[in-house]
This record gives sequence, structure tokens and C-alpha cells, in this order.
Amino acid sequence: MRRIYLDHIASTPVHPLVLEEMLPYLKERFGNPQSLHADGQEAMAALEEAREKVAGLLGAESAEVYFTASGSESNNLAVKGLALAQREKGNHLVLSAVEHQSVLHAAKSLEKLGFTATLVSVDKQGRVDPEEVRRALRKETVLVSVMLANGEVGTIEPVAEIAEICRSRKILFHSDAVDAVGNIPVNVKTLGVDALSLAAHQFYGPKGAAALFLKKATRILPLIDGGIQEGGRRAGTENVAAIVGLGKAAELAAAEMAARGLLQSGLRDKLMVELPRRVDRVVLTGHPVERLPHHASFCVEFIEGEGMLLGLDMKGIACSSGSACTSKALKASHVLLAMGLDHALAQGSVVFSLVDGTTSDDIGHLLEVFPPVIDRLRKMSPLYTKYLEEKGQ
Amino acid sequence: MRRIYLDHIASTPVHPLVLEEMLPYLKERFGNPQSLHADGQEAMAALEEAREKVAGLLGAESAEVYFTASGSESNNLAVKGLALAQREKGNHLVLSAVEHQSVLHAAKSLEKLGFTATLVSVDKQGRVDPEEVRRALRKETVLVSVMLANGEVGTIEPVAEIAEICRSRKILFHSDAVDAVGNIPVNVKTLGVDALSLAAHQFYGPKGAAALFLKKATRILPLIDGGIQEGGRRAGTENVAAIVGLGKAAELAAAEMAARGLLQSGLRDKLMVELPRRVDRVVLTGHPVERLPHHASFCVEFIEGEGMLLGLDMKGIACSSGSACTSKALKASHVLLAMGLDHALAQGSVVFSLVDGTTSDDIGHLLEVFPPVIDRLRKMSPLYTKYLEEKGQ
Repeated sequence: MRRIYLDHIASTPVHPLVLEEMLPYLKERFGNPQSLHADGQEAMAALEEAREKVAGLLGAESAEVYFTASGSESNNLAVKGLALAQREKGNHLVLSAVEHQSVLHAAKSLEKLGFTATLVSVDKQGRVDPEEVRRALRKETVLVSVMLANGEVGTIEPVAEIAEICRSRKILFHSDAVDAVGNIPVNVKTLGVDALSLAAHQFYGPKGAAALFLKKATRILPLIDGGIQEGGRRAGTENVAAIVGLGKAAELAAAEMAARGLLQSGLRDKLMVELPRRVDRVVLTGHPVERLPHHASFCVEFIEGEGMLLGLDMKGIACSSGSACTSKALKASHVLLAMGLDHALAQGSVVFSLVDGTTSDDIGHLLEVFPPVIDRLRKMSPLYTKYLEEKGQ
Repeated sequence: MRRIYLDHIASTPVHPLVLEEMLPYLKERFGNPQSLHADGQEAMAALEEAREKVAGLLGAESAEVYFTASGSESNNLAVKGLALAQREKGNHLVLSAVEHQSVLHAAKSLEKLGFTATLVSVDKQGRVDPEEVRRALRKETVLVSVMLANGEVGTIEPVAEIAEICRSRKILFHSDAVDAVGNIPVNVKTLGVDALSLAAHQFYGPKGAAALFLKKATRILPLIDGGIQEGGRRAGTENVAAIVGLGKAAELAAAEMAARGLLQSGLRDKLMVELPRRVDRVVLTGHPVERLPHHASFCVEFIEGEGMLLGLDMKGIACSSGSACTSKALKASHVLLAMGLDHALAQGSVVFSLVDGTTSDDIGHLLEVFPPVIDRLRKMSPLYTKYLEEKGQ
């Protein structure tokens, strides 16, 4: 059976050139970057080259890039590390209600240590109002964290405006840009962020390599204490091969992102227009324009996300119903609920996220396969039967 | 120039069969294990297979194995996670003075949160006396952490006895076994530990994959909060390829460890005997018998470790002067100082750690190259000149 992968937000494939660059570090170049001998120094040089490439993609200096093992780790390091480093200054955080679980739960952990967090709400399209962030600030506020783009609904947040507000109040600002970096242009200087998280496997790099941008001279406490790696801010033997892959992926993204985005957004637009035309009671979620170029997300009434995913999977289409980090928890997404969707509708969430190589044919096939899958599922739904009766059919 | 790699403790090469097993997960099998579709489930199955293999190597159940990205992360998760989960019970830790920095510094971080730690000393061969651990226990003690084997001096600690003492007092016991697992038999049941750290790149697996064994029903707080991965105990997209590599490395270790150990300890014994014969004023560090089979460590008087490493590196020999995690800090090792070596002697530390494929020829070559390198370095040492004068030469 033909298989079509439309789950970019869970993970992208590794670009063949990325793998090619990684392989020597899984073979003969196996040195530990912290070793003083030639094998170690070769690995260290590779690490620093990767750091420059990531910095290049972000418009940062390479000394401002710290490698971690996942976007979740970067988010935890930023939220906990920046908050705890300022403990004597204050104990209040401001987050958006649609942040990734790794930001929200990191803040929850901080609550046990005496911090409190204010969640700023979003509009129906998932956008944070910068003025609401301003109103949430207190004199004890030490950190604001608002994501750059939401993986579940694709919405891009007004991060530059929020960063500006934080800067004027001398409050640190972190942005989880895991779903954004490598897919849309991200410049840390233009955005004005103090910290920003990214992950390689969201832009054709490998799993296991991620980074935190941290503006020069920003104090942070490590999450992982120990050795002198990453300037003492993140201990542990560096995953050289994966980091080399992250560097190459960053280099490729800098060169190819615009073209990829154009191609994918064209196909994605077709999906956004056509899908609600072909199936009754389907709504687009997230912002219609200010959204990731590879991202189309919907809620399908009278359906549960899990059944939809499995039904589509059986037809060869891989997609998701939200964040992979919580997909098996099978709860309605906190993102959709924060956007004001009702609980039943939020259960019917589906995200199609395009990858390098997705074709017009793939989208055409999805548009054909989708209606009968939904039809079959709806036939099993008492709520749908009731709806049809009320509609008089 | 012929190059000889004798820095196992910094990192081993990846076994070709390990890489072979990893490659599909860097190519076509790129799914996120948390995704419900077939691509995700394929990745999840690979993860669970790796978990079983790691559990098999340790004599654990697979549900007791939690994947992390480094030995340092496993150690941080164990020390911080177990201590914080028992915060209401007590605030005292007991560690050995020769623990890895990731254990010692994790405890230091806990001190900021109201914990205190007692460091138990070691004898001249780096061994902890279990009775001293017993004497250090208080009614507020919630965690004891003593490593299984020390990477800097090779000494194997009496972990089973210490675990027994802890068990009788109902105090949790963690062992950092990063340098041990895959190199000597490690069975969590025989040892009686509640938690145990390991890392793939210490036994021919890749960097970026490690694990924490955690006995069933042991409460722990996550270091990285967020998604539901690893039973909610370690959030973040799993590094599937590296974890698959860890699994394969565990399987190979179970089959080959005994033969590897025999071969390596034979060559290592020759080094331990011959090196001090060929160079004046060289002492073996660590225990002469209770030590890792691939490990020979020495202190060379009148020499600084860094010069020795670079001198040997120029002759094609890669070795280390202690833990790679602190090698560039260029301070005398806390391990050697805790063993009672004086500061000057501790500066002259060198560790030769054998890997799969090290030959008798390699060791012979090292024994030839070592004396002239030391000679040249000593000629530049005023202390050595003085020593020779006093000796009447």
C-alpha cells in the first residue's frame, strides 16, 4: 500500500545529506570532545562547526548556542534554569495557555519550589494578545515564555511584540520555537528574545539533538549538573553525531527553507480549502494566515481523534491528532480547549503536516481517502445519527 | 602514523553491528514512538525491544529501565529525582568522595534546596568502607549514592554490601555504574540497588543513549517535565536510533563481555606490571585487583598530565588523565586527592583504558613510546632536576 507521511510535527525524516554528515561520527570519529588528544579535538571541532551553523540560522553568536538532547529539555532548561537563577528577584512567571507540556509542566514543578505562574489566554485562532501579557506582569515576574508557533494548530504568535514588552520591563523572555525553527525564518535579534528552544528533528535533522539559544551574559542554572560541557550549563557527554546532524540540518534549512515553505504552503492551502468542502462539519483550527507553512489542522465533529488516526493509518496516511508528546494520553488538547472549542469538538482534532517531498498527488489522495474514512466512523456515532435526524435526513 | 586508542573511559567506538542496527532508524524508520500510526508504532516497538535488551543485561524487568541521553543525565535524575521525591521524609544524602561530578554537583544543587550531603572517604586504593557508609547514615538520610566502578582509577566499589546496609535501614541506594555496565557483570538484583545509571558509549554503543534502572514502585520526580514518554518520568522525543544502538550494545555485551574482559585484562596486566618497571617513579593508582578489566591508571612523578597526554598524542597514543568530563578544567582530580595522593603527584595522572581490538602489539608499542616521552618532559621539570641532584646523579 502507498504510504503518505503527513506528520511533520511528530518528526521529520532525516535529510540524506544530514545522515551523510553524521556517519563518520558513528564510525571512525568516535572521540569524546572533552578529550585532549587528536580524536577528542576532532570531535570538538565538529561540535563547534555545528554550533556556528545553528547560530547562523538564528542570527546568533555561536557562544549563545547550547546543545541539549530534545526540545523538551531545552524548554525545561530555559524555564527552570532562568527562573531559579533569579529566585531572589522574584517568583512569578507568565506563560501562554497554549504552551507545550514541557513548558507548562516545568512551571508546575517550579510551583513546588515557591513560584507561581499566570497563564495568558488566547483568542479563537490561538493567538496571544501582547497587551494581555503586559497586564499579567507583576513586579515579582522574572520570566515570560510564549511559543513562536504552535504545533497543534499551526498558529504563529506575536513574539516580537511580547519580547518588546518584556524588554521594556527588564523581564527575561523565552520562546519555545521547536515547531518554528528551520521551517520559518527565525532571527533572535529581530525577535528580541533572551532564550529560544529548537529541535533538529523538526527540520530534517535527527532526534536526540536540540539547542537552547541563550543571549550572552544571561544567568541560568543547569538542569543537568556535572562536567564542563556546554560551558558548564549542560553536563553530559555530547551526542556528537546527532549534533553534527543538527548543524547540517540548520545549514540546509537556511538555504532551502524558503523554497520548501512555498511549495508546502501551496499544497497545504489546497488542503485547508478543500477538506472542509468535501466533508460536512469540519472546521479549520488555528489562524488561517499566520500559521506554519506546512501545517493544516482541523476538528471533525462527531468523531474521536484516535479512531480517525487509525482509520487514516489503515489507508496508508500517517497524521496526528495533536502533540506526539501527549497523543496517547487521549485527553482533549489543552490548546484547543484554551481556544474555546467545546470538549466534544476538540476530541475530533486532526493535524496534517507536510514534509519535504510531499506531492500534489499525496494531497489529492488524502482528499479522496478522507471522506469515506470519516463517513464510516460517523456511522458508528450515536451523536451523528441524532444530528442527521435533527437535520431531517 | 600508527594511532592507538586507549581512552575507553572517554568513549568507545561504536560496534559495527550496533551501527547497522541503528541505521534504519536514521533512514526510513523515522517515526516518533508516541505517534499512533504505523510509523510511530514501528519506532515504539524498536524502543521496547531495546528496553528488553538493556533489562536483560542488568537482570531487571524492562519496565524498570528508563532511557535518558547521558550517564550524567541518569545520575542527575537519580540523585535529584529520588531526593526531591522524599523531601518530606528527610533532607540528608550520603555519597562517596570519589563520585563522578554529575553525582557530586547534583547533590550540590540540592543543597540550595535545603538538603545536606555527607561525603564518605575512601582508602588509598579508592575503596569505600561500607561501615563508614553505615556510620554516616542519619534518620533524615533519604538516599545513598556510591558508584560501582571509578573511571579515573578503575576501582570497583563494594556496592552489594553498601546496598545491603541501606536496605536494612530502608534508605534508597543508587549506584553510578556508567563505567561498569557492559564491561563487568552487573546484576541489579544481586547488587540490591534501587537505582543504577549506565551509558551506551561506555560499551560500544553510541553517544546520546543512556539509561536509569529504577526498581519497580520507586517514587522519583522527573528532571525533564512534559510529555508522557518513559512513563512520564523523562519527557522529550526519544532518540530512537541511539536507543536501538544501546539495546544492541547491551545484547552484544551480554554475549561478549566475558571474552573481552579476559583478553583486555591480560594485556592490561602486562601494562600494570611493565610500565612502572620501565619508568622511574611511577605508581599504580586504584585497586590492584578489584578494578575494571580494561583499565590501568598511574601517577607519574614530576610530570603534568596535560603535557603527558599531548606528548603521547604526538606519538599516536590517545589516552586520558582522568574523567573527560573535567579534563580541560586542569585541576588535580578530586578522586586522587580523596585517595590521599599529594597534589603534585595527582597532577601526573594518566589512564590507559583498552578497547575492543587493542592488541598485544599496541601495548608493546606503548611500553616503548612511553619512557622517552616521559624523559623529555622530565628534562623540562626543575623538580625532577632537583630530585636527580639529591639522588646524586
